[in-house]
Amino acid sequence: MTATPPQPPEPSSEAPAEVPGVSRRRLLGVSGTAAVAGVVAGAGGLWAAERASGSTTSDAGALAAPSGAAALDAAIDFNGEHQAGIVTPAQDRLHFVALDVVTKDRAELVALLKTWTRAAERMTAGAEAAPGGLVGGGPFAAPEDTGEAYGLPASGLTVTIGFGPSLFDGRFGLADRRPAALADLPAFPGDQLEAARSGGDLCIQACANDPQVAVHAVRNLVRLGFGTVSARWSQLGFGRTSSTSTSQATPRNMFGFKDGTANVKAEDTEALAQHVWVASDDDASAGWMTGGSYLVARRIRMHIEVWDRTSLQEQEDVIGRDKKEGAPLGGAKEFDALDFARKAPDGQPAIPMNAHVRLAHESNLKGVRLLRRGYNFTDGTDGVGHLDAGLFFVAFMRDPRRQFVPMQQALAEKDGLNEYIEHNGSAVFACPPGTQPGQFWGQQLFA
Amino acid sequence: MTATPPQPPEPSSEAPAEVPGVSRRRLLGVSGTAAVAGVVAGAGGLWAAERASGSTTSDAGALAAPSGAAALDAAIDFNGEHQAGIVTPAQDRLHFVALDVVTKDRAELVALLKTWTRAAERMTAGAEAAPGGLVGGGPFAAPEDTGEAYGLPASGLTVTIGFGPSLFDGRFGLADRRPAALADLPAFPGDQLEAARSGGDLCIQACANDPQVAVHAVRNLVRLGFGTVSARWSQLGFGRTSSTSTSQATPRNMFGFKDGTANVKAEDTEALAQHVWVASDDDASAGWMTGGSYLVARRIRMHIEVWDRTSLQEQEDVIGRDKKEGAPLGGAKEFDALDFARKAPDGQPAIPMNAHVRLAHESNLKGVRLLRRGYNFTDGTDGVGHLDAGLFFVAFMRDPRRQFVPMQQALAEKDGLNEYIEHNGSAVFACPPGTQPGQFWGQQLFA
Repeated sequence: MTATPPQPPEPSSEAPAEVPGVSRRRLLGVSGTAAVAGVVAGAGGLWAAERASGSTTSDAGALAAPSGAAALDAAIDFNGEHQAGIVTPAQDRLHFVALDVVTKDRAELVALLKTWTRAAERMTAGAEAAPGGLVGGGPFAAPEDTGEAYGLPASGLTVTIGFGPSLFDGRFGLADRRPAALADLPAFPGDQLEAARSGGDLCIQACANDPQVAVHAVRNLVRLGFGTVSARWSQLGFGRTSSTSTSQATPRNMFGFKDGTANVKAEDTEALAQHVWVASDDDASAGWMTGGSYLVARRIRMHIEVWDRTSLQEQEDVIGRDKKEGAPLGGAKEFDALDFARKAPDGQPAIPMNAHVRLAHESNLKGVRLLRRGYNFTDGTDGVGHLDAGLFFVAFMRDPRRQFVPMQQALAEKDGLNEYIEHNGSAVFACPPGTQPGQFWGQQLFA
Repeated sequence: MTATPPQPPEPSSEAPAEVPGVSRRRLLGVSGTAAVAGVVAGAGGLWAAERASGSTTSDAGALAAPSGAAALDAAIDFNGEHQAGIVTPAQDRLHFVALDVVTKDRAELVALLKTWTRAAERMTAGAEAAPGGLVGGGPFAAPEDTGEAYGLPASGLTVTIGFGPSLFDGRFGLADRRPAALADLPAFPGDQLEAARSGGDLCIQACANDPQVAVHAVRNLVRLGFGTVSARWSQLGFGRTSSTSTSQATPRNMFGFKDGTANVKAEDTEALAQHVWVASDDDASAGWMTGGSYLVARRIRMHIEVWDRTSLQEQEDVIGRDKKEGAPLGGAKEFDALDFARKAPDGQPAIPMNAHVRLAHESNLKGVRLLRRGYNFTDGTDGVGHLDAGLFFVAFMRDPRRQFVPMQQALAEKDGLNEYIEHNGSAVFACPPGTQPGQFWGQQLFA
C-alpha cells in the first residue's frame, strides 16, 4: 500500500462515512489520502485495499463514472432495510448453495452467522473474506481468503441468506419462531424431485457479474462454516433469466424466449410491498421476518433437444408470446398488455388456454405475482446423449402459500410447457431482513 | 434492416472483402451502405444482421474502437491458417462438449462437418446458427437457431473442433489416416477416470466472454447433429486459468494461485512452431494435420476443502510460488526466472524438489512445453458435503506422446499437489488446421 500510490482524485462528496458501504473502487480512488486511509485502518487494516492492490483493471477504468464495464465492476451496498440480491438489478451470474447445519450447538450457529455477515459484507465491497486476506495470517496459518478472486473488482456481488424449514425443527430452540409461511412445499403433479437437489437448513445466494467472484463468495463462506455446516447442494447459473429493474433488457431462457417480461420490478415499490416484502403484521409469531422475503428455488430441467425439434408455432403457443420480439400472441410489442379475450383469425383464443403466460398471469391467479430472479444452467450431460440444461428458478415473495403454491399448482396441472420440462430440485427459505452496520444475518431471529 | 438505419461510419479500410471474416459489429457499423448491404445479401440474406437487430448494446459502444467492454464484445475471425480458440487470447468462459458419432455413414458425418463449419462461422461472427434464425423457417418449421443468444454480441466466441482416437476405428474409412500422435493416453498413477467424463469421437470447444454465447454455440451444434452425433460429456468453465497472450494478466485457479505464468504465449511464434503446431513433416501418414494441434483435456477435481485448511507455507511449497504475487519461491516478481539451484536460509532448495513448478518445468522435461488453456469449474456438490470444484485442464501441443505424457508421468509420480487433486476425466483430440472461406472442418482428412 505504501509503494507507488496512484495519484488520487479528491474523494467523492457522495462517499458514505461508514466503511461497510464503501466500495472497493471508491477505496481505490482515495487510497492515497490520509483522511480516508484512517477510515480503512479503522475497519481492520488491510481489508478492501488488500484485494485492490492486485487489481487487473486499469486505473482509468476504475476512476471513471460507473457506466458500461465500470458499472458491472462496481460494489453494491451490503447493509440496508432489505438484503441485497432481491431487488438489486439481477446480476449476470449466480452461485447458489444449500447447506445443512451439522452442529447441534445454537451458539456455534450464531457465531457462524456473525462471521458470515462480516465476510459477506467484506466480499461485497470487493475485499477478502477476512482481514488477513491471502497471507496476513503468516506462513503457518491457513490463509483467511482462498485467493481466486484476488485482483478482481467487486463485480456487483450480492450475498443473500435464507433459513429453511428444517432449521426450525427444534435443534436450535427455534421451533416456536418458525413462520407459518415457511411451510414445506406440497408435492405438485409431475414433480421428479431429487433429495440431493432439494431442501437445506440454510441457503446462500451469491450473484455477481463475474462468476469467479460469485463462486469465491460461496466457497469462502462454506470454508468458514467447516464443522458447523456442510454443503448439501449447489447450483451455478450462467445467465440471468429475469430483469428485476426497468433499466434492464429482458434476457432469454434456454427455450430461446424472453423470460420475466411481466416481472415485479424494483422501481414498483407498491408491488414490492404487496408481493415481496413481509409486513410487520403478516405473522405475529415471526416478527423477525418483517422486511424479509421468502425464496423459492426450483431446478427445472428443460428437455431442450425435444423443444428444438418442435415448430415455431408450437413453441409460441406453449409460451403465449412470439419468439423474436416477446410480444403476447395477438400483440406487437414485448410490453403490450396480455389480451386473453382476443381471438385469432381461426376463432380460437390468440393466447391458447393452456399457454404458460395465461396460466401464470395474475388475472388467472387472483392477483398473485412474484419477483422472479432465475438463471440458465447447463450442467454437463444426462448420460443418454442430452445436455443437462434448464432454468434454475428463483423467486422472492411475501408468502409462498398464497403465491408460489397456487401458481405452481395451476402450472403443474395445465401448462403446455410440462411436456418439455421437469422439476427435479426444490427448496424454500425465509430470507430475513437486511442488516444495519454491526448487525448479523438473522439477529432478530436469535434475539 | 431497412428501418431507421444507424448513421454509419465509413467502412474500415481493414474490413475484409469476404463476408465470412466480417464481424457482426462491422456489419452493424456499415449496414446502411449499399455496397456492404450487397455483401450481406450475398451471404444468404438475414444472417449477421438477424442477431444484430436485437442487440442490447448501445450503438455508441458498438461503433467505438474496440477497448474494454467493446473488445470483449467483438468478433474473432473464424477462418485462418490455424483454428481460432488455440492461440486466441483466452476468453473468460468455456463450454466444452465431447460427442460420439452415432451414424456409420461417412457421408452423413461429412455433411454434418460442412453444416457445422458454416454454423460455427456464422455464430463466431455474432449471427444465428443458420440463415433462417429464430423465425425464418416459418410457423410450421422448427427454428434454425435456438434463440438464447439473440441480441447478444459476438462476445469473442471461438469454436474449435477436434477428432478423437476412436473416430479412426474403421467406421468411416479413416483407420489409415490416424496420426501416430493421436494415441490413447496411458494410465497414469493415481488416475480416477470416469468413463462418463472421458473420451469421445469428436470434441467442440466453445470459448467466449459471455457464457450464454458459448453455451448457445455448443447447444446449436449438438442440435444440428441430431441423429448423427450424441453428446457424451460436457463441461462448463467459469473462469480462465491461463493467459495465452502477453497482453493478458495471469488469472488464478481454485487453489487461489496464479496459473500458467510460464505458458507458451501467442506472441512467441518460435515457441508455437516448436511446441504447438503440427509441422508438415511430423507424420507422413497424417499430413492433413499440418497446421493443426493436439488437445489434451483432463478434468482435475481439486479437494479445495482440504487445501483451504493447509498452511500458507505448505500451499506455497507445493506450488513452488508465493501465493500473493505468484513469484517463484526465492524470487520477488511473477515473471522472475525459476532458480532451481537457489537455497533457502535453512539450506534446503528454495523451490522444493517435489514442487509443481519444478516438476512441470521444461528444464525437468527435456525442453517440453505446452500451450495451456484451462478453466476453473464448480459443478454442484459431491454428495458428501464438498463443492465439486477444480480445474478443467485443456492444453494444445504438437505431439502428446512427447509433451503431455512425459509431463503428466513426472507429475503423477512426484507432484506434492497430488494430495489435493484427482484426475477424473481425460481425453485427447486431433484439432485439424484452420479453414479458408468455403472449406469445412477436417476437409483435408476426408479428401
